[in-house]
Amino acid sequence: MEQQQLDQIEEAKKISNATKRAISEPLEQMLFEPINVLDHGFIRVVDYMGNDSSIVQAARVSYGAGTKQVNDDQSLINYLMRNDHTSPFEMCEIKLHVKLPIFVARQWIRHRTASVNEYSSRYSILKNEFYLPKLENICEQSQNNKQGRGNAIQEEFASRIFEILKSDSIRAFNNYQLMLNVDIDNNPIDVSRPGVARELARIELPLNTYTEWYWKIDLHNLLHFLKLRSSDHAQFEIREYANVLLDILQKWVPATYNAFMKYKINSKTMSNTAVEVIRKLLKNEPVTFTESGLSKGEWNTLMTDLDLKEKLV
Amino acid sequence: MEQQQLDQIEEAKKISNATKRAISEPLEQMLFEPINVLDHGFIRVVDYMGNDSSIVQAARVSYGAGTKQVNDDQSLINYLMRNDHTSPFEMCEIKLHVKLPIFVARQWIRHRTASVNEYSSRYSILKNEFYLPKLENICEQSQNNKQGRGNAIQEEFASRIFEILKSDSIRAFNNYQLMLNVDIDNNPIDVSRPGVARELARIELPLNTYTEWYWKIDLHNLLHFLKLRSSDHAQFEIREYANVLLDILQKWVPATYNAFMKYKINSKTMSNTAVEVIRKLLKNEPVTFTESGLSKGEWNTLMTDLDLKEKLV
Amino acid sequence: MEQQQLDQIEEAKKISNATKRAISEPLEQMLFEPINVLDHGFIRVVDYMGNDSSIVQAARVSYGAGTKQVNDDQSLINYLMRNDHTSPFEMCEIKLHVKLPIFVARQWIRHRTASVNEYSSRYSILKNEFYLPKLENICEQSQNNKQGRGNAIQEEFASRIFEILKSDSIRAFNNYQLMLNVDIDNNPIDVSRPGVARELARIELPLNTYTEWYWKIDLHNLLHFLKLRSSDHAQFEIREYANVLLDILQKWVPATYNAFMKYKINSKTMSNTAVEVIRKLLKNEPVTFTESGLSKGEWNTLMTDLDLKEKLV
Amino acid sequence: MEQQQLDQIEEAKKISNATKRAISEPLEQMLFEPINVLDHGFIRVVDYMGNDSSIVQAARVSYGAGTKQVNDDQSLINYLMRNDHTSPFEMCEIKLHVKLPIFVARQWIRHRTASVNEYSSRYSILKNEFYLPKLENICEQSQNNKQGRGNAIQEEFASRIFEILKSDSIRAFNNYQLMLNVDIDNNPIDVSRPGVARELARIELPLNTYTEWYWKIDLHNLLHFLKLRSSDHAQFEIREYANVLLDILQKWVPATYNAFMKYKINSKTMSNTAVEVIRKLLKNEPVTFTESGLSKGEWNTLMTDLDLKEKLV
Repeated sequence: MEQQQLDQIEEAKKISNATKRAISEPLEQMLFEPINVLDHGFIRVVDYMGNDSSIVQAARVSYGAGTKQVNDDQSLINYLMRNDHTSPFEMCEIKLHVKLPIFVARQWIRHRTASVNEYSSRYSILKNEFYLPKLENICEQSQNNKQGRGNAIQEEFASRIFEILKSDSIRAFNNYQLMLNVDIDNNPIDVSRPGVARELARIELPLNTYTEWYWKIDLHNLLHFLKLRSSDHAQFEIREYANVLLDILQKWVPATYNAFMKYKINSKTMSNTAVEVIRKLLKNEPVTFTESGLSKGEWNTLMTDLDLKEKLV
Repeated sequence: MEQQQLDQIEEAKKISNATKRAISEPLEQMLFEPINVLDHGFIRVVDYMGNDSSIVQAARVSYGAGTKQVNDDQSLINYLMRNDHTSPFEMCEIKLHVKLPIFVARQWIRHRTASVNEYSSRYSILKNEFYLPKLENICEQSQNNKQGRGNAIQEEFASRIFEILKSDSIRAFNNYQLMLNVDIDNNPIDVSRPGVARELARIELPLNTYTEWYWKIDLHNLLHFLKLRSSDHAQFEIREYANVLLDILQKWVPATYNAFMKYKINSKTMSNTAVEVIRKLLKNEPVTFTESGLSKGEWNTLMTDLDLKEKLV
Repeated sequence: MEQQQLDQIEEAKKISNATKRAISEPLEQMLFEPINVLDHGFIRVVDYMGNDSSIVQAARVSYGAGTKQVNDDQSLINYLMRNDHTSPFEMCEIKLHVKLPIFVARQWIRHRTASVNEYSSRYSILKNEFYLPKLENICEQSQNNKQGRGNAIQEEFASRIFEILKSDSIRAFNNYQLMLNVDIDNNPIDVSRPGVARELARIELPLNTYTEWYWKIDLHNLLHFLKLRSSDHAQFEIREYANVLLDILQKWVPATYNAFMKYKINSKTMSNTAVEVIRKLLKNEPVTFTESGLSKGEWNTLMTDLDLKEKLV
Repeated sequence: MEQQQLDQIEEAKKISNATKRAISEPLEQMLFEPINVLDHGFIRVVDYMGNDSSIVQAARVSYGAGTKQVNDDQSLINYLMRNDHTSPFEMCEIKLHVKLPIFVARQWIRHRTASVNEYSSRYSILKNEFYLPKLENICEQSQNNKQGRGNAIQEEFASRIFEILKSDSIRAFNNYQLMLNVDIDNNPIDVSRPGVARELARIELPLNTYTEWYWKIDLHNLLHFLKLRSSDHAQFEIREYANVLLDILQKWVPATYNAFMKYKINSKTMSNTAVEVIRKLLKNEPVTFTESGLSKGEWNTLMTDLDLKEKLV
């Protein structure tokens, strides 16, 4: 972040307004402050609406006297989470300023129920910032996961790849400036000719270029985002952002965070066929993979979940 | 509203939290306070996020240096509104508690990009409250507007209609209680038998019964709601709510309100055929309805807009 | 349905167009035909787009060569369903004409990701049709489910309730016509005076009045609707519609139906705490409710799922 | 497109299924056929639902007898379009297979109310295809439009830019293959070492790389997309796609196309201040820019619209 922006953030953090609205004290503490992600990225919370009590309040409107029996907020939030009563979670909202590589932004934006204002490279000139992975994150293609990463690659080849990414990024940015006809201070290189339109020059830049956006989402849809993007099926780089968001979530709405981890992140969903296998195991009836009706992937997942690794096939 | 709720609101209004977030001072003043609508309805603001400056901030992220030429917030917001750059308006959010007749709720909920938690008549017993129109609002079917109201009906017949609505509402509520087997204090009428399930008993109630909900929407979608529901094509009763919302809008985001009134509410959209008619009129070329290429409705709308009532056909 | 409409449907069913698009033969067979629901309601399929193979096709675009290992359509669809790869299911669409009581319509419309054109009682006069439950469906309030129905009520009281609903529905419709000043053939009752505006007269009608709409939704969102509305937590009357939709689903996209029943309807989701209980049971370690960390509701649900009813508390 | 795909398309085009559904004959003729856009892109229609008559049918459900006065389909569709009765247009749906450069895809996906399945470069290897603009489309930055293109750049500099884009694209693709450790036939280059994970190697590629997706959208949202993306404010490259979509629209739903062009594309929206200026002009009252209350941009737009170029300031 540039010094000018950091100074503005310091100024903004000194402000204290009086409000009758619900607040989250831990989120107020971290408001505006950038949290670093990857080599040049960040997430910072710029605004929010509501807290755990807003969810409880909305649930009580819907369920009225029916919720009086659930006598504390954590229990009610657990109940809502467990039973997929999702609408009260829509009553909270958060707005973030995020800096992220374009290939991460392309995955992120697939979540449609959110609002976005992205830095426009049609209006403005992009900065000379590119994501370069750490050597230990340069991994080979996974053998058993068509979309994922496997082991770290041997260091010599990893270093070579790092150098390629770095030098091609630099070359692309230099050529971007040449097309725009601007130097590092955005002054014309050659005053005798115009620059190419910004919207065109940018097509030269690689997918590891950083962009920025304001992103606003309600809590229900944020949880859905986190469920998918904190999973080990998600790409490492977007998981790094998801992990920071999980920390923010825990500070903002701790009861929701607890319920989410328990019933959504660390839960297992089992088909009726899988449950039937468990029932037989509990009755000490013989069960084999071939007779189970499960696919090999399902069987192995179930045995792993049940801590019965000796039964893996 | 019940005294208990009003007391809670008085308590809530005394709270003052410190926040670093953007606030709207006029909205803080009215927070939690119910504004009466129709005979038993209300709207009250229970939370909000952002103000006019949040829109400007989001726009500057998108348009960067490109917006520096627009040197004040009102001008930038005018520009965004005029050119349908809608995404910065999504960066503000408002949450309302609304009490409204069911037939109004049915129109309201057609706006899908919003979050709702409605009082559930499956969980809880509805109150004895019904919308009864004032005599001057009991109007005849409009002759030229298939979906609208025309002149007020003669008072004698209007009174009769009022009495029908009133007595049928009372009868329905009494029968609702009889089915539920509860009296006015929700005690059993006849302890020897159970009550009918609440989800079933409620089907007896008429569409003028009041319901309540928490409703949360972003500013862009609120403007779209207001464009449609403050129009004279909207039903009188929902327009009463839209008018209160317009007042809230003006307090919350005054620059947005100004731009909205100028470019969306009080603007006219004209087909190229209509614009061609204006061009001819300005050149003093003869233009008649039959040669204009406009439908009768379009011609008359145009002549009214242009203050040329002598040309109505 | 009126004879005129039925005749039109017979005509429409005779049409045979040539198309290159994917079709579903069983759905073609039932196209346009109303399937009765409740006493006066129906669902009929009026259009659709895609079939099981469209899902597979979309998945193969996304996952390319990565899906070649899954060598049949049912297995691929199972994989997508199990792993919540929901976007390929959005590639199919269905359009229905539904007639349903207003209180059911109010629950139905809470599903926002769909398109609706409802019969407008501002433009047109409603028909004299009301939902009256069968005696066996007039049940008492459930004692352990705050939002549900319990046992059928004793017949004498049920009959009385039926008669109240019936006579109040008739009275409301008669008064509706009186306000509108129209008789059963929609001719004026009293030519010397106007009728009240339709948008106002309708507020007299009860929530068991039937309405109609065209409803269009993609397959992913239809599955979500069915998950919630075919559940025994849903109100009986909307479940009747959901059950018909499940039949339609099975005809339209049989592989998707199979995967949906297996992984979404008949599956169980268990928190990590619940899975830990299962692991201990499998190791014959002692587990009691009090030490389990589960709430009473969770414990009993788990023991029921595991067919260990002797452990219920 | 590869020969294998073209052969499959030829096969698919020979299919003729019988359907009772509404069809669009001109769209059937072009089904599956790719229409070229830019240097390597295409759009092809792969499925659709409904036609102009489906819109009319849905409108008549909503407005019932109220629409009988509008006695032909074009007039009714004009009425719906002019008055922003948008819901009947949601009743039609279209599914496209699109090949487009990533920088175009990034603009396209901002339209959130649509379904997408994109070719995944985590699962599969991208092809060696890059967008290279024609020399006449390599333009300078517009002087008066912060986000747009101005005049074509002098040919010598344009050629140089073309060569940079071309050579950097080739270099990036070669390095992409080197990282993946695959040659042009996707065989390993060096069998002694693994390739880098596909999800990582792709970050090397520039924004002019082509991607593909299936994209499904309803007609209302397609019109909104076309309004924004066929505008001269849109970037040239996405406008090329929008223009092809306009042709498809005209074939699919000709009455809707006519109404859309008349009331949405070729219409003008004027603020009440602008209308007041027109009224004065029609009354031959003096009006000057400074007294008009319009901004300079608004005044000039209005005078241009009114064909009064002598009044430009």
